[in-house]
Amino acid sequence: MSRILLDHGSGGKTSQELIEQVILPRLANPLLAPLNDGAVFELPGQAGGQRLAMTTDSYTVSPIFFPGGDIGSLAVHGTVNDLAMCGAEPLYLSAGLILEEGFDLSDLERILDSMRGAAEEAGVAIVTGDTKVVERGSADGIFINTAGLGMVRPGVSVSGQGARPGDRIILSGTVADHGVTILSQRKGLSFSTELRSDSAPLNGLVRAMLTAAPGIRCLRDPTRGGVATTLNEIAAQSRVGMILEEDALPLREEVRSACELLGLDPLYLANEGKVLAVVGPEEADRVLKAAQEHKYGRQAALIGRVTAENPGRVLLQTPYGTSRVVGMLAGEQLPRIC
Amino acid sequence: MSRILLDHGSGGKTSQELIEQVILPRLANPLLAPLNDGAVFELPGQAGGQRLAMTTDSYTVSPIFFPGGDIGSLAVHGTVNDLAMCGAEPLYLSAGLILEEGFDLSDLERILDSMRGAAEEAGVAIVTGDTKVVERGSADGIFINTAGLGMVRPGVSVSGQGARPGDRIILSGTVADHGVTILSQRKGLSFSTELRSDSAPLNGLVRAMLTAAPGIRCLRDPTRGGVATTLNEIAAQSRVGMILEEDALPLREEVRSACELLGLDPLYLANEGKVLAVVGPEEADRVLKAAQEHKYGRQAALIGRVTAENPGRVLLQTPYGTSRVVGMLAGEQLPRIC
Repeated sequence: MSRILLDHGSGGKTSQELIEQVILPRLANPLLAPLNDGAVFELPGQAGGQRLAMTTDSYTVSPIFFPGGDIGSLAVHGTVNDLAMCGAEPLYLSAGLILEEGFDLSDLERILDSMRGAAEEAGVAIVTGDTKVVERGSADGIFINTAGLGMVRPGVSVSGQGARPGDRIILSGTVADHGVTILSQRKGLSFSTELRSDSAPLNGLVRAMLTAAPGIRCLRDPTRGGVATTLNEIAAQSRVGMILEEDALPLREEVRSACELLGLDPLYLANEGKVLAVVGPEEADRVLKAAQEHKYGRQAALIGRVTAENPGRVLLQTPYGTSRVVGMLAGEQLPRIC
Repeated sequence: MSRILLDHGSGGKTSQELIEQVILPRLANPLLAPLNDGAVFELPGQAGGQRLAMTTDSYTVSPIFFPGGDIGSLAVHGTVNDLAMCGAEPLYLSAGLILEEGFDLSDLERILDSMRGAAEEAGVAIVTGDTKVVERGSADGIFINTAGLGMVRPGVSVSGQGARPGDRIILSGTVADHGVTILSQRKGLSFSTELRSDSAPLNGLVRAMLTAAPGIRCLRDPTRGGVATTLNEIAAQSRVGMILEEDALPLREEVRSACELLGLDPLYLANEGKVLAVVGPEEADRVLKAAQEHKYGRQAALIGRVTAENPGRVLLQTPYGTSRVVGMLAGEQLPRIC
């Protein structure tokens, strides 16, 4: 490869290759290397002190307004959620706007209002920012970067390396809501009015889950690349296998229909308000109950388990007793889903 | 105004209007309000403890490679410098890349190498990142956002509100090097080979200056909008006047020539390796000497003083004894200078 492809931004296998072959060798350092949703560190000279988490994401979603949210709320939720996935309480966000000349000012106002609303719900403040404008044609309307800082909860240590055979896999709700909403909007499909992004701040839900079970091994939000890609990443990092029960996966009927029509597998579509938790078997019931009692986890379900067999592989068991390997997202072009 | 104009990204008056009329009313909070180069805060529950600084900037410079640097080194220097301007030692950076489909991979590698080199020189680590790819035509090659976290030096309190009548204004070196280099490159001017961006990490220089004089009142790097706009911002925030001595302003001969040819005022052109310091009169000599002993401050000069008269206004005294008001950058289109 000598040029950047859309697939390099898919969140799937090609993205991983770009990160592992091009980016990591150049920027490598001990904090970046683990490739969790953010970096966790103590301040220099304060070993044993408060652990902090830092993360960043750029948002290029198209369309910028969609049922259930917009690029502004998404940019806040996404970074709040990445901090939550580090076991951290999100505190402060930065916001970097890149605007295209000619962008509608009332759209910008609507997006900023949405960012504020999302920040208020999540209990975070946007404390610093930057605005750049590029010539017409040099960007597509608006791109937003948010970075975030949070305080890691004492006693919590979650990591993609943490899954162990026997652990249970919990998903906090229905899959594919965000991805299928964006793709349907883009294609102008008529059933799109019934679809709605799940974009939501997950820090409250994660707080409830960690309070119930501080020993949760791993937390991830299955965004780009979906549940399948995220579980493959954890399976590879932890060197374990995973078995998913297909009929345990929460899936809205309208999402199922849309996926069938579009020829898409919901396991590979982005979620923006869901958490995947890998938990020890003795804590699974408590985590599930805590999730189900939270408004963003009502439909939480136990969707599978971690195995010693097939390390690095995720198997899906169908209701008919057959099973198939579910790999990482590979070669599908679903750009600008977030 | 109902649409975003290029001037909204100039760093000058129109940018300020966008921030004050559109962004601040929506995202307002006590940390964002002071509009310094970054936010300074203590962690919740740790009042009186370590103060942290957080900042962000997106980089859209065109061309992406230029004499003296590239978008990668600039993205590291810019955020390192914004932290230094908060009186902080920069620690950790995030990096968010937005790539256009078709972007040359070897260019990306060169930019990443440059980011690493810049980070190593500044003593910071890039600890978390994100890569998005948009379709051909939806961005211009590469945009980079960096956010940064730093620890504020004990006893240091710098702010745009800190300037007082009688204070001295020190500039750490020649003006306009970055701005004129970028604009000359863009116009393909032949003298552009003699020009070179001043892009550099300023944390070491600022450390030396603060060690010599911990009471420095205000530190700013005069990037977009240049020295004139930055001083106007400080004058307005501190409700003081300023008098600059035109013949005290360090200016390279080749930059002066290029500015004359291009019809540009060097006071309004961006610098990416310079710091403006407002210091009490008793500390001015020490700060100047400390700066001149540092490799990035060799040509530091005392360029003016703070007055009680003409609050909010910056006057430039010419060698001929006349003076003129130097306002904020207004209505000039110098997009994508950083």
